[in-house]
Amino acid sequence: MEISVIKIGGNVIDHEASLNTFLEKFAAREGKKILVHGGGKLATRLSARLDIPTKMIDGRRVTDEQTIEVVTMVYAGLVNKKITARLQSLGCNAIGLSGADAGLIRAVKRSPEPVDFGLVGDLSPSSIDAPRLLDFLDSGLTPVFCSITANQQGVLLNCNADVIARSLAVALSPTNTVKLIYCFEKKGLLANVDDDNSVIPKISRANCEQLKNAGVISGGMIPKIDSAFDAIAAGVSEVIIKSASDLDNSEGTVVSDF
Amino acid sequence: MEISVIKIGGNVIDHEASLNTFLEKFAAREGKKILVHGGGKLATRLSARLDIPTKMIDGRRVTDEQTIEVVTMVYAGLVNKKITARLQSLGCNAIGLSGADAGLIRAVKRSPEPVDFGLVGDLSPSSIDAPRLLDFLDSGLTPVFCSITANQQGVLLNCNADVIARSLAVALSPTNTVKLIYCFEKKGLLANVDDDNSVIPKISRANCEQLKNAGVISGGMIPKIDSAFDAIAAGVSEVIIKSASDLDNSEGTVVSDF
Repeated sequence: MEISVIKIGGNVIDHEASLNTFLEKFAAREGKKILVHGGGKLATRLSARLDIPTKMIDGRRVTDEQTIEVVTMVYAGLVNKKITARLQSLGCNAIGLSGADAGLIRAVKRSPEPVDFGLVGDLSPSSIDAPRLLDFLDSGLTPVFCSITANQQGVLLNCNADVIARSLAVALSPTNTVKLIYCFEKKGLLANVDDDNSVIPKISRANCEQLKNAGVISGGMIPKIDSAFDAIAAGVSEVIIKSASDLDNSEGTVVSDF
Repeated sequence: MEISVIKIGGNVIDHEASLNTFLEKFAAREGKKILVHGGGKLATRLSARLDIPTKMIDGRRVTDEQTIEVVTMVYAGLVNKKITARLQSLGCNAIGLSGADAGLIRAVKRSPEPVDFGLVGDLSPSSIDAPRLLDFLDSGLTPVFCSITANQQGVLLNCNADVIARSLAVALSPTNTVKLIYCFEKKGLLANVDDDNSVIPKISRANCEQLKNAGVISGGMIPKIDSAFDAIAAGVSEVIIKSASDLDNSEGTVVSDF
């Protein structure tokens, strides 16, 4: 079957109007679909209100015992259930999930070497219980994943939502045609970072290298694009990077191997 | 099929050792089962840390906009995912759920008259999607419900965990043999409130009235017992009130119509 795995970033979650517009379009979208969401700034704000220091290394959150409790509350609790209840009210039979639920996503705690990020989980496509997920999709459910998982020992772990989306897409690809769609606040990959309308409609591995060398793809975009090509190499049929407000149209950047 | 619906109270959740002992016994229990949990004092403590006043009327929490966010974070997030991950590590294929997930429990917001409890939900057996729940049980999953639900409009609502447990048990009873087990910190219904070993092993509707008249059943126990008889009248095969640490034995009070 055809399945869309759609990831929304923190910027969409942080703006109620953007989130509501996105959820209406998501609910109206035909076909089997899975939503993966990050947490936005809510967790950082809650940590601040609770006087829990937010530690970052290289732009990544360090997850200590107190922080895993905060992100579990915010991502798996508040954000996940708000989205799920809203989708239900829009006629989409959503089921909010962490990776711990039904053992759907089993993570491994990241090694503390070379950098100790604390209670952070890594995954591989074999982390995913694809048959169970396909059962849910077959029975009309729309899984909505937050980025909290657990390991085999029952320890809750904070994962990267992009990685969860990619791992789900790859795990479902052997028996399905899977589209992986990353929705964020820009209209796609931009040729000129200062011009929101300079969207590159299609990018292949060859011109990706050219764009990297020319400095058009730089910084935080490099791992995202590399991860998109990894997904395609692992069997995902198409990766699309686009604005959350464009879910219902063909705008955005299509990442393709050809 | 035979199904046990087991509810644990806040006192069990508040004590990590008691909770772990209970979860080991729950995981080891044979047969189809559903867990329903309250939230304990964690929500009250988090509200205090966030300077959100906890308002109570007649011993019941008033759930305003800020409070529903706190209880959703604590019950549906932290408590639900900790329990689910722990059960998974014990070999029990748990799936943590709010009532919003898969539309399993649809609540109605309680009327603000005569007392406005805010974002509080009421349910009936018809609130439950019993076929979906039976699908989950048939496929080897063990649902773990927190006491957060939503109404048809996607508004999250705080429900009473005892009521959720009873509604689930009643909804599954037409096609199954359902035991409803309330686990709390006492060994059962006590003939003498000061003697923990004075458990009444069995209580019928007739001697319940006698015990009420004699003042043995009083205060907060009266609605619990009445609710147990309501469940039996609605088709539940047995209601048991016992200690969470006695889940694996036959101690406790059996409530029966005969």
